Amino acid sequence: MENRTELDSLGEFELINHLTQYFVPQHETTLKGVGDDAAVLATGGSTDQVVTTDLLLEGVHFDLMYTPLKHLGYKAIAVNVSDICAMNATPKYVTVSFAVSNRFSLEAIEELYAGMQIACEKYGVDLIGGDTSTALHGMTLSITAIGEVYPEKVSYRSGAKLNDLLVVTGDLGAAYLGLQVLEREKEVYKATPSIQPELIGYDYVLQRQLKPEARVDAIQFLDDLKVTPTAMIDISDGLSSEIMHLCTQSELGCDLYEAKIPVSPDVQRVAEEFHLDATTCALNGGEDYELLFTISQSDYEKIKGSPHFTVIGHMTEKVSGPRIITRGNEAIALRAQGWNAFNA
Amino acid sequence: MENRTELDSLGEFELINHLTQYFVPQHETTLKGVGDDAAVLATGGSTDQVVTTDLLLEGVHFDLMYTPLKHLGYKAIAVNVSDICAMNATPKYVTVSFAVSNRFSLEAIEELYAGMQIACEKYGVDLIGGDTSTALHGMTLSITAIGEVYPEKVSYRSGAKLNDLLVVTGDLGAAYLGLQVLEREKEVYKATPSIQPELIGYDYVLQRQLKPEARVDAIQFLDDLKVTPTAMIDISDGLSSEIMHLCTQSELGCDLYEAKIPVSPDVQRVAEEFHLDATTCALNGGEDYELLFTISQSDYEKIKGSPHFTVIGHMTEKVSGPRIITRGNEAIALRAQGWNAFNA
Repeated sequence: MENRTELDSLGEFELINHLTQYFVPQHETTLKGVGDDAAVLATGGSTDQVVTTDLLLEGVHFDLMYTPLKHLGYKAIAVNVSDICAMNATPKYVTVSFAVSNRFSLEAIEELYAGMQIACEKYGVDLIGGDTSTALHGMTLSITAIGEVYPEKVSYRSGAKLNDLLVVTGDLGAAYLGLQVLEREKEVYKATPSIQPELIGYDYVLQRQLKPEARVDAIQFLDDLKVTPTAMIDISDGLSSEIMHLCTQSELGCDLYEAKIPVSPDVQRVAEEFHLDATTCALNGGEDYELLFTISQSDYEKIKGSPHFTVIGHMTEKVSGPRIITRGNEAIALRAQGWNAFNA
Repeated sequence: MENRTELDSLGEFELINHLTQYFVPQHETTLKGVGDDAAVLATGGSTDQVVTTDLLLEGVHFDLMYTPLKHLGYKAIAVNVSDICAMNATPKYVTVSFAVSNRFSLEAIEELYAGMQIACEKYGVDLIGGDTSTALHGMTLSITAIGEVYPEKVSYRSGAKLNDLLVVTGDLGAAYLGLQVLEREKEVYKATPSIQPELIGYDYVLQRQLKPEARVDAIQFLDDLKVTPTAMIDISDGLSSEIMHLCTQSELGCDLYEAKIPVSPDVQRVAEEFHLDATTCALNGGEDYELLFTISQSDYEKIKGSPHFTVIGHMTEKVSGPRIITRGNEAIALRAQGWNAFNA
């Protein structure tokens, strides 16, 4: 009898490591292959190239019952651009592939592309190719983004040093709460289709869920301030999970201060309404697409005045592991409860 | 009432042109965006980069009832590498994304990756990234391939000149006949599962369908012979359809000689068995992944002794259109009956 191992018995990263373990890069120009937000390639020119790709599936990554196609198109580009930013790189190109069932009309796909076009213009990326196909079920999108970065500016997940400061852009937890609002209104609608959804007063959290922004601006601010992060990752799966990646790959621990995690008043308010803890939303919610990075303590003076960056902790010895220091001054081991595509 | 236009009312190329018409490349480094086998990007180094991407869906592009996963993995890499070759470029990198339902075990995905690994080694490409996800239905693969080429050697679809010779690598029609054999045995199996499939004697056509090769070797032969094609395309959708792309984009016609189309004895034999015309299989079958290209007449002496290349016609004035000159010396307008992903 043949063995059968379920795919969801491995975490996503364990699965990728398992499947790619026998693929050994042959080209010297492959500076970084699998294992970061993007691959890094030497081109022979003055800049390196970074390459990232994402699959987005209806029913897994998005629900068209409450996601306008124009927003979906925008978000599909933004989340890939965010991975480019996470390498401290500048996005330049995207390819877009889609497969759709005959449920989708040309007009629907035009909406999708209209959203992608707005995102391409906003982020300064050229659409350079793609593929289209019919599908038996639903909609699948596959995006590949390519960016460029000077070799001395690339930020890998593995570069954090002991005592480096842990910094985050923007605020966290909103995208997750936006999803809660949309899911609640979907249930109401399913029960009573005549009721209009209650979306007023939720602008911020809804926008963060439906139309997230890649922090291309933050990469520019860092460049202006002459700060090169020692390590960086984008927050797609929740702060906890991303901190753990930084710690694992940099072979360090970290102390994260709960009181310093940036949470907007909107997030506080909506979290209370849903009887959720705002910190938990920020730690485990995901989809905020902010950047998490580390900087040398000597760079602190450069960023401390910026409204875009919040220092939330610092890197510690590996033996301490990743910890959260609560408002009550307790140190608790951080656990990743981020989103796993195979346990969704 | 809103308009609803069905996606299959447009051809694939018309659809892509329609959707991407408002995306105007902003970067000078985008030498070629949408509209060829691959995009071409300037890197600042001595070589340009070419980028191509393909979606492969179960039930649309492959049938796992008769496609071993290892072969599927190999083919998924090969067909993308073929698009890189079609730019006269050398493949270097691939990203691989997959989404699968819980029908698939880890062992099944290991088989898929084993096939991809063999192809990566054979074609000299590094696996540099990808994405994985669960899916509600079936298996979806998305591959992006990146290659490099010296600027003076890039072959676009649009570069053919009047009187250039039309040349093809290898032989045509076998992959389509391999599919016919597999479909026939599938029907037999569905009717009577106890009967073993009759696959003996069909090795060549089955191999061409299940494990096609990208003609990286032909690109090398051309380089050795110091021949740069004036235009090139790979034959994924059938010779007719690809010739029409070359003619349209080069704004020329062409005369294709039926008697010169390379068809193997195996294809003749299997075509007869299926009461099909071997020329029709070659013209419209698709999936052979041979290369179709044009060369200046002055290069004829260089390639005429090569067993890898067959001159099948020449480029004519646009007004003549693409024509096939039959064995009976009749000139008939060529029609594309290639595979269309939205009318499959």
